[in-house]
Amino acid sequence: MFYFRSMELTSVIYEKRGSVAYITLNRPDVFNAFDESQSYDLQAALKEAGKDAEVRVLVLSGAGKAFCSGQDLKAIAGSKNRSLSDSLYKRYNPIIKAMREMPKPIIGRINGVAAGAGASLALACDFIIAVDTASFIEVFVNVGLVPDSGSSYFLPKAISPARAFEMATMAPKVSAEKAMEWGLINRVVSAEVLDEEVSKVADYYANAPTMAIGMIKKMLNKAGHSDLQTMLQYEAYCQEIAGRSNDYREGVTAFNEKRKPAFKGN
Amino acid sequence: MFYFRSMELTSVIYEKRGSVAYITLNRPDVFNAFDESQSYDLQAALKEAGKDAEVRVLVLSGAGKAFCSGQDLKAIAGSKNRSLSDSLYKRYNPIIKAMREMPKPIIGRINGVAAGAGASLALACDFIIAVDTASFIEVFVNVGLVPDSGSSYFLPKAISPARAFEMATMAPKVSAEKAMEWGLINRVVSAEVLDEEVSKVADYYANAPTMAIGMIKKMLNKAGHSDLQTMLQYEAYCQEIAGRSNDYREGVTAFNEKRKPAFKGN
Amino acid sequence: MFYFRSMELTSVIYEKRGSVAYITLNRPDVFNAFDESQSYDLQAALKEAGKDAEVRVLVLSGAGKAFCSGQDLKAIAGSKNRSLSDSLYKRYNPIIKAMREMPKPIIGRINGVAAGAGASLALACDFIIAVDTASFIEVFVNVGLVPDSGSSYFLPKAISPARAFEMATMAPKVSAEKAMEWGLINRVVSAEVLDEEVSKVADYYANAPTMAIGMIKKMLNKAGHSDLQTMLQYEAYCQEIAGRSNDYREGVTAFNEKRKPAFKGN
Repeated sequence: MFYFRSMELTSVIYEKRGSVAYITLNRPDVFNAFDESQSYDLQAALKEAGKDAEVRVLVLSGAGKAFCSGQDLKAIAGSKNRSLSDSLYKRYNPIIKAMREMPKPIIGRINGVAAGAGASLALACDFIIAVDTASFIEVFVNVGLVPDSGSSYFLPKAISPARAFEMATMAPKVSAEKAMEWGLINRVVSAEVLDEEVSKVADYYANAPTMAIGMIKKMLNKAGHSDLQTMLQYEAYCQEIAGRSNDYREGVTAFNEKRKPAFKGN
Repeated sequence: MFYFRSMELTSVIYEKRGSVAYITLNRPDVFNAFDESQSYDLQAALKEAGKDAEVRVLVLSGAGKAFCSGQDLKAIAGSKNRSLSDSLYKRYNPIIKAMREMPKPIIGRINGVAAGAGASLALACDFIIAVDTASFIEVFVNVGLVPDSGSSYFLPKAISPARAFEMATMAPKVSAEKAMEWGLINRVVSAEVLDEEVSKVADYYANAPTMAIGMIKKMLNKAGHSDLQTMLQYEAYCQEIAGRSNDYREGVTAFNEKRKPAFKGN
Repeated sequence: MFYFRSMELTSVIYEKRGSVAYITLNRPDVFNAFDESQSYDLQAALKEAGKDAEVRVLVLSGAGKAFCSGQDLKAIAGSKNRSLSDSLYKRYNPIIKAMREMPKPIIGRINGVAAGAGASLALACDFIIAVDTASFIEVFVNVGLVPDSGSSYFLPKAISPARAFEMATMAPKVSAEKAMEWGLINRVVSAEVLDEEVSKVADYYANAPTMAIGMIKKMLNKAGHSDLQTMLQYEAYCQEIAGRSNDYREGVTAFNEKRKPAFKGN
């Protein structure tokens, strides 16, 4: 396996292998808690993956034992009168928007605890694979805060109001298994096969019709607050574009020739 | 059992028994894949069921082994520069809109595979009964397309974003059992009792307060993108109408007389 | 245990113990069916709990065997040409709006059947604990009516369209266990431990950062019909307020001192 490290960042590792970009939060000593550096590095890594036409799928992960433990409270211990709103507008919201607006699938490799903004980050992924020891905790309320970085949006889309209220106001440790049962995530696997499973999914998306998948992502985003008529029109709009793609031509040809299609992503 | 075949169509069978209209896709040799004929016949059948005041419930099904395998790719093999958008506007979207806007319950009798637009068709039904060998597959992505015919709307209303993304972008074969567990459908039964179960549910709706049920369908449609205040007002509007119906008078009278109500549907 | 009965009402009991307000529907002979008196008493009790700054959490329950059996059909047996819309605007909708707009958590103690408007009342709670013999039934359709008091809003937010349609149009008796599996509620417990479980949850909220929890409630309400961008902005707005609260200061201090925070609710 050859990884090309195309960017040098401080708190995030950005690697590329073929069409797959691997973005790894890299502050393992503090369970990949966000300080300013990690926030801006993650923004830069997402930007790079977005603009690199070769990249057809991203894998977001954490180094060490945790996926991401959210905001580093020690990093802000000294700062008085810090505006949390500013912090969201500058650091966290651009990350979440970049992830949701990027027309490429993002696989969350949840290798351990995902807490606070770390839980939001996990839920902002499109396809979520968790190790069986991972957990999801909306810890904000434990320090008198509200869920941010998109959690207030992601939770009620994925789970019922009763469950969302409990997660957001009681901060229970939701196990990977429970998250799977509730539909928050796509896979739970043992540590031994985590990377194998992530590779399998990444390989699928690396060879999938990327342009169509980018539009599907947008469609599902839009459906969350749209009526049927709006979605039927949007489907027609997207399908017209998909129908003019090389991948569609290849897909139909391969179907008629009874072979596997070779999608180029455009 | 006497069925009255009130319309002669080429690719769809339209039968009426009492207050129940049975609409059956009838191209079993191609697993009821949609060609132009089947699309327009289904539109006509839905129109007929909608305007026939005697019809209080519809049963939508497929002839043979499959429910519906979606667009017939062979039927379009010769057509170059075919506009997929046109096809949706003329053929598929009118079907889905007719189904969702019809103020009568539609039972999906999912007798086998429901793939592509066939999966959308199944999910557009109000009450879904599947045989245990049936499956739901959003096959669009396999030829480089995006889900259409309402699937991008139905999936995220029924299941979580993670599951909807997986179904839409990976086209897994979702078994009837899994669809039941996820809440996509209402019943899974063996082939032996499929028609018995469908009859039971059709009988219920054939004798239910149809006007109220039509309004309930509209209310649940509207709730998907509305806030609480809007829905409380809409509930009051609909309840005022229901409260002036013959069925409400009969319902309260029957309740006080401790007997089963005889609803006429108006 | 000392309860302070601060209001004298006819059909509802209002008690306060510490920061917890206990509101109990008290027409056990008719399974706490709503007549005018119980509707207006519940409005008054909710208003009292809302304006009493000492109250940080509410527990809503029913006296006797049932939680609430909905509208008392006998109470309206004599009234001809009664407007159901008027009844909703004056009696039920203000209850549901007060519950959902109150920036304090409401625990539903579902001690028995919750039917019709009683089911709506249960689903309007934030955290729902049911005894294992309880059930939820949208009985409206049985007398030719449509779900009201918010049920048409709550059902499709909590469960899939297929399940919501079945509950609303067939009025099945949904057991507490099934409601738990579907995510409609948070806990199912035996009768012996119901009050213990309710106390545990009430104690948690009585000592939680109430202002943040009030905002979380608003955020989750809003998320149901909002897009990501709207929610990211609203999160920033709410977090800025939370970040200036005494509870946040206490939360961070306690975290750094490795002790349990003592939240005052402001």
